[in-house]
Amino acid sequence: MRFDVLTLFPEIIETAIEFSILKRAKEKRIIDIKAINPRDYSKDKHKKVDDTPYGGGAGMLLACQPYIDAYEAIEKLQSFRTIILSPQGKTYNQDMAKEFAKEEQIIIISGHYEGFDERITEITKAEEISVGDYVMTGGEYPSLCIIDSITRLLEGVLGAEESAQSDSHYDGLLEYPQYTKPREYRGLKVPDILLSGNHEKIKEWRRKEQFKITKLKRPDLYEKFKDTKLSEYDKKILKEIK
Amino acid sequence: MRFDVLTLFPEIIETAIEFSILKRAKEKRIIDIKAINPRDYSKDKHKKVDDTPYGGGAGMLLACQPYIDAYEAIEKLQSFRTIILSPQGKTYNQDMAKEFAKEEQIIIISGHYEGFDERITEITKAEEISVGDYVMTGGEYPSLCIIDSITRLLEGVLGAEESAQSDSHYDGLLEYPQYTKPREYRGLKVPDILLSGNHEKIKEWRRKEQFKITKLKRPDLYEKFKDTKLSEYDKKILKEIK
Repeated sequence: MRFDVLTLFPEIIETAIEFSILKRAKEKRIIDIKAINPRDYSKDKHKKVDDTPYGGGAGMLLACQPYIDAYEAIEKLQSFRTIILSPQGKTYNQDMAKEFAKEEQIIIISGHYEGFDERITEITKAEEISVGDYVMTGGEYPSLCIIDSITRLLEGVLGAEESAQSDSHYDGLLEYPQYTKPREYRGLKVPDILLSGNHEKIKEWRRKEQFKITKLKRPDLYEKFKDTKLSEYDKKILKEIK
Repeated sequence: MRFDVLTLFPEIIETAIEFSILKRAKEKRIIDIKAINPRDYSKDKHKKVDDTPYGGGAGMLLACQPYIDAYEAIEKLQSFRTIILSPQGKTYNQDMAKEFAKEEQIIIISGHYEGFDERITEITKAEEISVGDYVMTGGEYPSLCIIDSITRLLEGVLGAEESAQSDSHYDGLLEYPQYTKPREYRGLKVPDILLSGNHEKIKEWRRKEQFKITKLKRPDLYEKFKDTKLSEYDKKILKEIK
């Protein structure tokens, strides 16, 4: 998988590859990440990349020329998708991460402080994506969140143990509470059931906790799950909770 | 504002302070960021920080002792809040960023690969927060998203121009399309209205675009806005769209 990130702060992207999972995936030659600075493509004599908005208003806008020229200079692999980070975008989620993980190349256009000239999205046919409903100064850390979430889905990046665990987070319900040694820490005890050795009962307890926690903390996910995915086992569990 | 991040990858947090807004805010002494590695507090002779879960299951869990000891070693300022990054958490948003920006100190507990022993959240009374419904290998980039979103709200970090622009993103509707020079780029023209010089008409066009785009791209935000915040001007605009 190749990631190309258009950014005015290429160092943020480039240092990320020196750590943790991105480093590991790069060393195994499963991913490669390039950061491209649109400023290097600016035809302005002061290497300017932005200008004032037509129609007035505060702030500056990132202009077509440097971004489009930088975008077109990127070598495109056979299957690629282009993402532009924008508060107007579709909210990023795990299903999108899975879709993106099927491509050979992901190109991310990241802004900084400023908005984009609308035509950048139009010409690159980029998908507008937002990582969440909060405002940031730049798309660099969101880009790294996206790159991380895709990379960990690629074959050979995580060990079997690691993937098994994290995949359980995403059948649509939140995770049950977990405990490790010691049995008692500062007066707080591990629930007896987890020490019982009765695997059927433990499974049941965990599933009940998942339903309870999801209903309490994320009623939106709970309703969605209840409407679409209930197995016979889950129906029994739900009945017992009530 | 002081940020303390508990993380097994302190380098990711520490290099972030060398770039862009975090660098600028640190140089102006508006923020300080410390990364603390719970591994340094582990009493295990191999400096282990995790162990297997009670009740069985794949993967490992981050254990109480190193995290609680590291947490307690952090000097607490008078007003602070503790966040633990978790898929079970409340979804982070701009209102939360504004709340956090009022504190003197934000402590972030970040995991990596693995889940936490439930008692870590209980003892630290941390608020569980998720930056979005996607799975990542670690909380480091999400931590930086949160730190960035809070930092840019602090007085003196952004110039007046910069804040004015980005604040307009968040009255509850998405932004209108924006354009900068040139008037025509690759056959794509700036909408005539924006070149008209008629400020009242431009304002009206932009507001209409905000309503249209929000309804199309984020019907959830659109409904919420329509139910709570309609001014007389907005009511008129909406009527005209229909």
